[in-house]
Amino acid sequence: MSKFYSKLALKAFPYTPGEQPTDKKYIKLNSNENPYPPSPTVSKAIQEEIHKLNLYSDPEATVLVKALADYHHVKEDNVFAGNGSDEVLAFAFAAFFAGKAILCPDITYNFYFTFAKYYESEFIEVPLQDDLSVNPADYNWERFKKLHPRSQFGGIVLPNPNAPSGIYLQLSEIEKIVQANPDGVVLIDEAYIDFGEESAASLIDQYDNLLIVQTFSKSRSLAGLRIGFAIGNAELIKGMKRIKDSYNSFTVDRLAMYGAVAALKDEDYFVEMKNRITATRETVTKKLQKAGFTLTNSKGSFIFMTHKDIPATYLYEQLKKEGVLVRHYKQPRINNYLRVSIGSDEEMNIFCDIIDRLITETKV
Amino acid sequence: MSKFYSKLALKAFPYTPGEQPTDKKYIKLNSNENPYPPSPTVSKAIQEEIHKLNLYSDPEATVLVKALADYHHVKEDNVFAGNGSDEVLAFAFAAFFAGKAILCPDITYNFYFTFAKYYESEFIEVPLQDDLSVNPADYNWERFKKLHPRSQFGGIVLPNPNAPSGIYLQLSEIEKIVQANPDGVVLIDEAYIDFGEESAASLIDQYDNLLIVQTFSKSRSLAGLRIGFAIGNAELIKGMKRIKDSYNSFTVDRLAMYGAVAALKDEDYFVEMKNRITATRETVTKKLQKAGFTLTNSKGSFIFMTHKDIPATYLYEQLKKEGVLVRHYKQPRINNYLRVSIGSDEEMNIFCDIIDRLITETKV
Repeated sequence: MSKFYSKLALKAFPYTPGEQPTDKKYIKLNSNENPYPPSPTVSKAIQEEIHKLNLYSDPEATVLVKALADYHHVKEDNVFAGNGSDEVLAFAFAAFFAGKAILCPDITYNFYFTFAKYYESEFIEVPLQDDLSVNPADYNWERFKKLHPRSQFGGIVLPNPNAPSGIYLQLSEIEKIVQANPDGVVLIDEAYIDFGEESAASLIDQYDNLLIVQTFSKSRSLAGLRIGFAIGNAELIKGMKRIKDSYNSFTVDRLAMYGAVAALKDEDYFVEMKNRITATRETVTKKLQKAGFTLTNSKGSFIFMTHKDIPATYLYEQLKKEGVLVRHYKQPRINNYLRVSIGSDEEMNIFCDIIDRLITETKV
Repeated sequence: MSKFYSKLALKAFPYTPGEQPTDKKYIKLNSNENPYPPSPTVSKAIQEEIHKLNLYSDPEATVLVKALADYHHVKEDNVFAGNGSDEVLAFAFAAFFAGKAILCPDITYNFYFTFAKYYESEFIEVPLQDDLSVNPADYNWERFKKLHPRSQFGGIVLPNPNAPSGIYLQLSEIEKIVQANPDGVVLIDEAYIDFGEESAASLIDQYDNLLIVQTFSKSRSLAGLRIGFAIGNAELIKGMKRIKDSYNSFTVDRLAMYGAVAALKDEDYFVEMKNRITATRETVTKKLQKAGFTLTNSKGSFIFMTHKDIPATYLYEQLKKEGVLVRHYKQPRINNYLRVSIGSDEEMNIFCDIIDRLITETKV
């Protein structure tokens, strides 16, 4: 690498997003994008701001922060808005986990490992159970302290539902983890929480060490607009602002801010779209189970599937040939699984038809 | 501060953007915003993308990178696009200056100091000359090496034109600095280069240690859209990508990318607007000189003015009372100056009238 690179650049372990091949038109079921466009109100809100683009956006994103605070029944100083939940996670890592030890599932969103490398966090993997579920009792720093006597505890990073399994941990279990670790920040990444389950945001008034991260990329159909946010104790939010203002004061642009507010206010559309996706998820799950697949109990906008007789790599390759992209991880324990985003009913019918055909061919 | 903060959060020295009071409507001449809206083509480009916002943007921002490469006659791998030039600068600091020593003017864009604190760079101030101009001969690591024997040289950060003086350094002088420091990255921040002067981007093929940073916030009227970019040797660009992909893969959103491409392609509008602003700058400069002010030879979209008899703080306060915001820095050497963004002719007439009145009152 170049002689000009800093140690930070040399030791970095950059994340690789899902593939975006451009050789032909694919049905993209590999990035957990919402198959439906955003609320029509988003378009109107954005158009009203275009002629003001010569003016800087509000560095505090006040309008959005206020809307989020109202929506989640918290105060404005409990909310931080950023450029996608990846940025919000990066700021949280910088603010609370840099140079410290964190507990994290061994199988989860891979970007956490990238953040840990970048911010020199000690990344302590906590293995999921055999069924890929989280055992809440495992997330207790007291148990790890003796093995890591020189480490300073930063906290816990846990997505709920977890990725790529989609398995949801009950709120009461999350609360136990928060209670068991008063000296660390418990970050719950709720990227997929809107697809049917309950957020832990309701607990932030009781615990100063709980930080919730959510995104507009999935349930709000705004992956291309880059809006994520955190909800937590005011001191935690202040810490994240210290990081943001050391880096880039204006990460949420003018169109993104007003577009997000409009999306948040169209509750009917939001509910309709998420119901549509969860209904499709249940239909597809049943079809695949019938076809002999085992699926985790996913509460996300995706399914996680495996077949005891047919290798996931084979299915992945065949689907790609047929123009359907899904996600396959080369990681141990899950390398015989596929993660498939829930697309429209039409897309999922095509997907299921290909799967049925592949299974029939394999049997012959 | 909170017990949960990392050292990174504790030692941070967050930047404060220009004030944005909301108590009444101001003529805002304090943030170097362009007074004119973006090209009408931007609006069209953005509207075409809104219904696709459910899809992620391209993490490489390929369309924009290609357009920038064409525009600046470089290759695609010489271009990096980010969320405003602040983000691009942050990534450059992380990639090349983290933990190393940098040379920087004592009076310049204050965010450099924030970046240096955040990335633990040793910030070596090089005093501007008495007339606030840069002496190129001062920017030579050989001269500093003996005083900093244990420091690793990272490079030089120099805006051209410099801020807030607006003074431009000839390209031949920039080239001498690049030649004199082959072991460091010479970062030229050209945020204001479009208002009349020549970019050093033409030199990147000759020097592997030259990095140019520009923005769409000023000359392209897109401060609210957050687009900045860097041009440099492919190895430098790769280093910045390593940092970006350790932090947030998608910092340029879908609307920003296509909006920026549209702005870049409307050359006629761009030329017309920048000519309008430079013409206003020259008119206002003459008026103020006539009124007894001393101004630096600003080549930016702002002027930097001082009066030997009237304190800048007084002018700042009076202007604010009259509904005109300008920028006053409490910093030594420039605390009797005001930085005034070039607004529309109408706005500048109001500004000049107030100034004239204040001067007459002071004389009485």
